[in-house]
Amino acid sequence: MHTIRTLGLLTAGGDCQGLNAALRAVTLAAQRDLGATVLGFHDGYVGLLRGDCRRLDRDDVAGILAQGGTILGTGRGRAEQGAALDDLVRRSLQQATALGLDALVCLGGDGTQRFARALAEAGLRVVTLPKTIDNDIRGTEVCFGFDSAVYIATEAIERLRTTAHSHSRVMLCEVMGRDAGWIALAAGLAGPAHVVLIPEIPYRTEAVVAALQARAARGRRYSIVVVAEGARSAADAAAGRTQKHAAALRLVDELQDATGIETRLTTLGYVLRGGAPTVGDRLLATELGLEAVRLLGAGVHGVMVGQQHGRLVPVPLAEAGSGARTVPPEHRWIDALRRLGACLGD
Amino acid sequence: MHTIRTLGLLTAGGDCQGLNAALRAVTLAAQRDLGATVLGFHDGYVGLLRGDCRRLDRDDVAGILAQGGTILGTGRGRAEQGAALDDLVRRSLQQATALGLDALVCLGGDGTQRFARALAEAGLRVVTLPKTIDNDIRGTEVCFGFDSAVYIATEAIERLRTTAHSHSRVMLCEVMGRDAGWIALAAGLAGPAHVVLIPEIPYRTEAVVAALQARAARGRRYSIVVVAEGARSAADAAAGRTQKHAAALRLVDELQDATGIETRLTTLGYVLRGGAPTVGDRLLATELGLEAVRLLGAGVHGVMVGQQHGRLVPVPLAEAGSGARTVPPEHRWIDALRRLGACLGD
Amino acid sequence: MHTIRTLGLLTAGGDCQGLNAALRAVTLAAQRDLGATVLGFHDGYVGLLRGDCRRLDRDDVAGILAQGGTILGTGRGRAEQGAALDDLVRRSLQQATALGLDALVCLGGDGTQRFARALAEAGLRVVTLPKTIDNDIRGTEVCFGFDSAVYIATEAIERLRTTAHSHSRVMLCEVMGRDAGWIALAAGLAGPAHVVLIPEIPYRTEAVVAALQARAARGRRYSIVVVAEGARSAADAAAGRTQKHAAALRLVDELQDATGIETRLTTLGYVLRGGAPTVGDRLLATELGLEAVRLLGAGVHGVMVGQQHGRLVPVPLAEAGSGARTVPPEHRWIDALRRLGACLGD
Amino acid sequence: MHTIRTLGLLTAGGDCQGLNAALRAVTLAAQRDLGATVLGFHDGYVGLLRGDCRRLDRDDVAGILAQGGTILGTGRGRAEQGAALDDLVRRSLQQATALGLDALVCLGGDGTQRFARALAEAGLRVVTLPKTIDNDIRGTEVCFGFDSAVYIATEAIERLRTTAHSHSRVMLCEVMGRDAGWIALAAGLAGPAHVVLIPEIPYRTEAVVAALQARAARGRRYSIVVVAEGARSAADAAAGRTQKHAAALRLVDELQDATGIETRLTTLGYVLRGGAPTVGDRLLATELGLEAVRLLGAGVHGVMVGQQHGRLVPVPLAEAGSGARTVPPEHRWIDALRRLGACLGD
Repeated sequence: MHTIRTLGLLTAGGDCQGLNAALRAVTLAAQRDLGATVLGFHDGYVGLLRGDCRRLDRDDVAGILAQGGTILGTGRGRAEQGAALDDLVRRSLQQATALGLDALVCLGGDGTQRFARALAEAGLRVVTLPKTIDNDIRGTEVCFGFDSAVYIATEAIERLRTTAHSHSRVMLCEVMGRDAGWIALAAGLAGPAHVVLIPEIPYRTEAVVAALQARAARGRRYSIVVVAEGARSAADAAAGRTQKHAAALRLVDELQDATGIETRLTTLGYVLRGGAPTVGDRLLATELGLEAVRLLGAGVHGVMVGQQHGRLVPVPLAEAGSGARTVPPEHRWIDALRRLGACLGD
Repeated sequence: MHTIRTLGLLTAGGDCQGLNAALRAVTLAAQRDLGATVLGFHDGYVGLLRGDCRRLDRDDVAGILAQGGTILGTGRGRAEQGAALDDLVRRSLQQATALGLDALVCLGGDGTQRFARALAEAGLRVVTLPKTIDNDIRGTEVCFGFDSAVYIATEAIERLRTTAHSHSRVMLCEVMGRDAGWIALAAGLAGPAHVVLIPEIPYRTEAVVAALQARAARGRRYSIVVVAEGARSAADAAAGRTQKHAAALRLVDELQDATGIETRLTTLGYVLRGGAPTVGDRLLATELGLEAVRLLGAGVHGVMVGQQHGRLVPVPLAEAGSGARTVPPEHRWIDALRRLGACLGD
Repeated sequence: MHTIRTLGLLTAGGDCQGLNAALRAVTLAAQRDLGATVLGFHDGYVGLLRGDCRRLDRDDVAGILAQGGTILGTGRGRAEQGAALDDLVRRSLQQATALGLDALVCLGGDGTQRFARALAEAGLRVVTLPKTIDNDIRGTEVCFGFDSAVYIATEAIERLRTTAHSHSRVMLCEVMGRDAGWIALAAGLAGPAHVVLIPEIPYRTEAVVAALQARAARGRRYSIVVVAEGARSAADAAAGRTQKHAAALRLVDELQDATGIETRLTTLGYVLRGGAPTVGDRLLATELGLEAVRLLGAGVHGVMVGQQHGRLVPVPLAEAGSGARTVPPEHRWIDALRRLGACLGD
Repeated sequence: MHTIRTLGLLTAGGDCQGLNAALRAVTLAAQRDLGATVLGFHDGYVGLLRGDCRRLDRDDVAGILAQGGTILGTGRGRAEQGAALDDLVRRSLQQATALGLDALVCLGGDGTQRFARALAEAGLRVVTLPKTIDNDIRGTEVCFGFDSAVYIATEAIERLRTTAHSHSRVMLCEVMGRDAGWIALAAGLAGPAHVVLIPEIPYRTEAVVAALQARAARGRRYSIVVVAEGARSAADAAAGRTQKHAAALRLVDELQDATGIETRLTTLGYVLRGGAPTVGDRLLATELGLEAVRLLGAGVHGVMVGQQHGRLVPVPLAEAGSGARTVPPEHRWIDALRRLGACLGD
């Protein structure tokens, strides 16, 4: 086991709810359990590369648990994208050495995990936490930010339903999810939605039309269709086309033409990742942050703290950063939607 | 004074929060105060034209006060648009006579007021209520739906602010308001926003850029810009061009190019008019509904129930339906934003 | 007109939502419009007496608009209660002179208005703002904090209704309001409640029992009864007895015994005054704060900024501090509840 | 495997959020997957004893997913308490036979599980679902209702914090939990609270006083203390005394006397179990309901559907009804609170 005297901390990638809760937990536990000094880097890896950081103390993290965003700022490192990965890693390690960092905790998504892995392989003690509203990081069944995003999407669906109902309209609601349909599935179950289209299941427009018509035949001309950003038709999937937002726009027209029912699109974008975290995300981010410190104290690093079967586990960074975790075809939420009579487009 | 034995009731135009609260108030008071039978028409004027209605009783309106949408459905009468106004009025009166209607209460926006006026001029006792999230009906200082829409827009701005802050971005938030900037102003004050662009004040992009740069110079690279759907640049205004959504899209690019700060757009559409009404809209819709019944009982009709200087007043339908009520240049909200340091684009 | 170079600012009495919004508005406008330096006193009049204050700048009030509570702290001056009013006033003026205060803006309730009046009469330029969830300050039709408190009470009533309904129970919900029934009335309308008991209308238990039984006879064994803290029975009123909370406890037993329906009590206390202000309170507090600065700039003082007929007006402090503004018997909310079939206990 | 042609359904015990979501899932899946007719009993076991039920169809459960309470009503069977358990079971089976029930799904808490077990032992095919805001049913790591109750308690704590802070007060917040401290712990983590007292850890008042004084010494005179209903002092625990609410009342006085800091109590009661379910409870209740139907279709009964290690599992009714599941001393939430610096009273 190695003593951690100075611990670095940063938030990278797109922000989401729960980042501050995790920063607070790491800071408090690192001071209390390890007796460490905590340095928070500004704007993600950008701050690490520049050695741009400040000391975080108990007072700095007081009252931030429920705040949206991140008090450290975040960055996607674009300013540095010209540089080769090796070069970025080398410079990061130089700064880490210059600042006397004994370890680094990185909060981030998919890209963060990959860069963290490179740092770890270069010799830095790194532990990461999985944050993304998309919930698609491998090695963990849940990421913080997801619960909050689903809450916001569900609230929007509820609003859209009352107006869909009053106007006997079909309302499409596009939610984030380029590679994976987690938000769409969960919000579709909780909304509830009548049709849910996700990237993992290429849809046939005719199947969606048939579902809407079947509802209309039962006297329900209004319907809610939740579409993940990355959903695409079977034809587009077969042809290898990806279109994202354009697909939703086209689908609105196709459905309206085929059903004769007024159809409208609402796109939920950045609002899904903003504002105060839900209780679920507060607890998750806090527990993950505490576990990161515990692992470092126990000499474990080079891992992401994930949750599997309801328990916190260390996940090798190689696994965590190995691409998007998509929804498996037999997932219980897919099964649930089918059993409740929802259409998944296939 | 005239006895009202049978009272018709309908909701027309785009739906909004508070319609059910008003339907409940009218139904309960018409039964209790007037001893009247209430007939609710389905899908707005479409139901009136077709005589498609049902009796509303105490049990029908129990528990609907806080429900979004309208239990009667609404319609814009498009199916009938081919017909001349005279013809629609004549057929409506035939149905009213056939059903024995002694009076009609219409909940609706601008268009509703105009059709109601035609009905009134043709001899039907009509009282209307002003509903629209846009808050732009003449003769009243507030419409129900507005408070709820501002609440939703404000909540979205709060979410956008945390992510704008974390990423040091400019976030544009487009809200409804084709002709009038009421939602943008109120949400801009409550959000709060740093820039608010409304149809009544054509904006100069340079002024907005200067405001964003002034903030950046004070160390605040993030900003919130609220844009009403109908806002347009001074150049477009001078040329008589209206562009709505396209203007917001273009503005995003212009601001990003000129400031060098990452800029993103979020468009709040149908979610603004859905879901449960706020407390403010519940009270307003309820009071307006009760007043409509009181007026009819007192023999007053051919009017919209409006609020002026905080009091309920009957407003001639000719005034109510005379076009959009825009924000006067000296309105206290405009003054307030300026005094608080916000930019209005001029 | 008099130049205001240094402006004092304090929040006194029980806190409520909107205080920070008003502090922000006063600070920003005093700097921008008057070029004044703003000094914020800690913990209300206690800070004034001790000269305990700090300079407030734009950065101090950034981001506080939507925060609950008050960044200055508040106090009821109890520590000083032993002292005579004259003495407190004299010492306050000494501090004001020592600090070079040209004027003072006080945010507070009933008691605050009275002390402010004494300061004004002793020669200090004072403008006050009406804050209290109870909404019972004279000279204004609305106080900030009220809208937020009604929102919270209404949300609680909605929660109580679902459980009342499931269990076929009567739920009493006690809300704040010692002298005036404003919160109970508004929340009773918005909830909605079936019975609303307020201090202004002494209730007869038999009338309440009859209302509950009438509902049960129509198949509705569940009911919601909203009781203001200061509501009392006609017998207690006649005998000059006040009991507050004890009255609600006794009423629960009386109703359960008389109706045979399970009856439960929920008391909403401090939660009503906490958390973020509603949009309505943000706008009101902001506008009142701006108006206070405008009045001072125009040489007007010795007044509270009130709202009458929807317009901001200066109200003499003598009127503002002259006791609780109770609900007049003919108020439109009382009328509305009666017309909707609610029982007011008489 | 046995065919289920007629399926009974009931909700018993105290209501909570998610009951309707579960009723909807069971009804839809029983019709679609089993082709069964669903009979919903009114008011819990009371309805079963009386044969008081109605058929539930797709339209009956449309739109109820997010509704608080239960459309079937619930009852604690008190009217029947005089009868012996054997007699109640015998009469229930008679009704089940008379109605041709092939199986029964019961949604309920601890007591429900015990009665369900008796029914199962007498030969009825029974599957139960764990519902209780207290989260204390054995054999499952989570019950529906819990997430919603924690959400409401957390929101209340956030409100209390702003007013505690403004007034430099200690705020005690009492939450439900007679036997187990789950709500207090989760809300204490999410709030966050500075002191959390639960039934499982008898508290020493001196330890709480020391924690409050330590905060005051760091300049933070305000604190939030969350107290579970069943928390008690070490002295009371040693003497075998239970006092519930009285303990909280006494603690307020003790803390105020010992610290000299103004201390106030807020009791959150029935509001914790009312209103719309959170997204988490919607998903959980839906999935549990679907699993109940799947188990019955697969010939499994005599079990509660529980969740263990994040997976749905059948739990023997004997285990489910064997008393309250208290928080184990080494639970990760207890550990988390300690590591974050909170006081647990010991």
